[in-house]
Amino acid sequence: MKKKGLLLIISGPSGAGKGELVKRLRATAPEGFFAYSVSATTRAAREGERHGENYYFLTREEFESRIAQDGMLEYAEYCGNYYGTPKGEIEEKLANGVHVILEIEVQGAMNVKRRMPEAVAVMIAPPDYPNLERRLRGRGTNTEEDIQNRLAKAKEELSTLPSYDYLVINYDDMLDKAVQDVFDIIKVEQDSVKRNSGFVVDFYGK
Amino acid sequence: MKKKGLLLIISGPSGAGKGELVKRLRATAPEGFFAYSVSATTRAAREGERHGENYYFLTREEFESRIAQDGMLEYAEYCGNYYGTPKGEIEEKLANGVHVILEIEVQGAMNVKRRMPEAVAVMIAPPDYPNLERRLRGRGTNTEEDIQNRLAKAKEELSTLPSYDYLVINYDDMLDKAVQDVFDIIKVEQDSVKRNSGFVVDFYGK
Repeated sequence: MKKKGLLLIISGPSGAGKGELVKRLRATAPEGFFAYSVSATTRAAREGERHGENYYFLTREEFESRIAQDGMLEYAEYCGNYYGTPKGEIEEKLANGVHVILEIEVQGAMNVKRRMPEAVAVMIAPPDYPNLERRLRGRGTNTEEDIQNRLAKAKEELSTLPSYDYLVINYDDMLDKAVQDVFDIIKVEQDSVKRNSGFVVDFYGK
Repeated sequence: MKKKGLLLIISGPSGAGKGELVKRLRATAPEGFFAYSVSATTRAAREGERHGENYYFLTREEFESRIAQDGMLEYAEYCGNYYGTPKGEIEEKLANGVHVILEIEVQGAMNVKRRMPEAVAVMIAPPDYPNLERRLRGRGTNTEEDIQNRLAKAKEELSTLPSYDYLVINYDDMLDKAVQDVFDIIKVEQDSVKRNSGFVVDFYGK
């Protein structure tokens, strides 16, 4: 019995170090462990961007027809363009036992969880508020208004924690620990009974 | 915020290697990681057995009064004597952040899960039926009738798998892997959102 891959949702407020964590996860994992999920969008391709690599570039009609055919796992409209996660490709990768990471914001995460409850949703968070504030200010590139906006947004995002499955705290200078936490979650989730529903049948059938 | 310990239920059919696994878990864990849970019984103490160490030896009246006061996490009557798991002591250990292992059969496990849903129930199983049969016959000490009884009982026990949280397969000569699986489950369960419900309040309160 080949095990399905996990659909791993990673969210977290700006400043939590989510992007770095996902990068490190991919860099550390053996080849073929994770698959990339390429998003779809109706915005125009920028110079150097390639269809099927950076994005699937679709017309508005194509995108809406995909939505109508239940082909988008989640989508949102932003500045007049659609952005979304095509479903079919992800399902194919999962069926092949490959894990798929979706680094998405909380609203998209909730939508994915509703449609694929077997997805594993992980919230990455800094250890505490003063730490978050220090990280955001430490970047030095943000205006005070921008920092205040991000802090307010973080509060909103953290309030959705109960809809997530796991909380991984990304302590300063301990990114490797957070990365290991996520790998352990992936490993242990595969021992969960809900992902081994065929075990007893196989046990007597083999 | 001090994290509570986990109440870890370990079950599995005869031949799964559950006893050995629990022994190795305890032997490998750092001191103070696990606490022993001492059972209570109304049977007479055998020579050398000590109250509070091997069992809490109670009279029938004492035992029944504990049941009436909701003081038993689970109990059963067997050959005219009560056997049960006192609740108060376990709760105290868990509150101190110590993990408690309950190695109990499936009926008791279900009862504990009903009363303490935060308990983590792990089923230990051999990889497949031929393997289980080989293990039971390999002991050499069982009669054919006994083996058949254990095989029938195993089928019953495995059918309760959906009520468990995790399935750990104990492959031949890979006990250390199964032990590591259980340690990983304990670690990852502590990152679960349901065990971190106070995080957001602490995040802003610290």
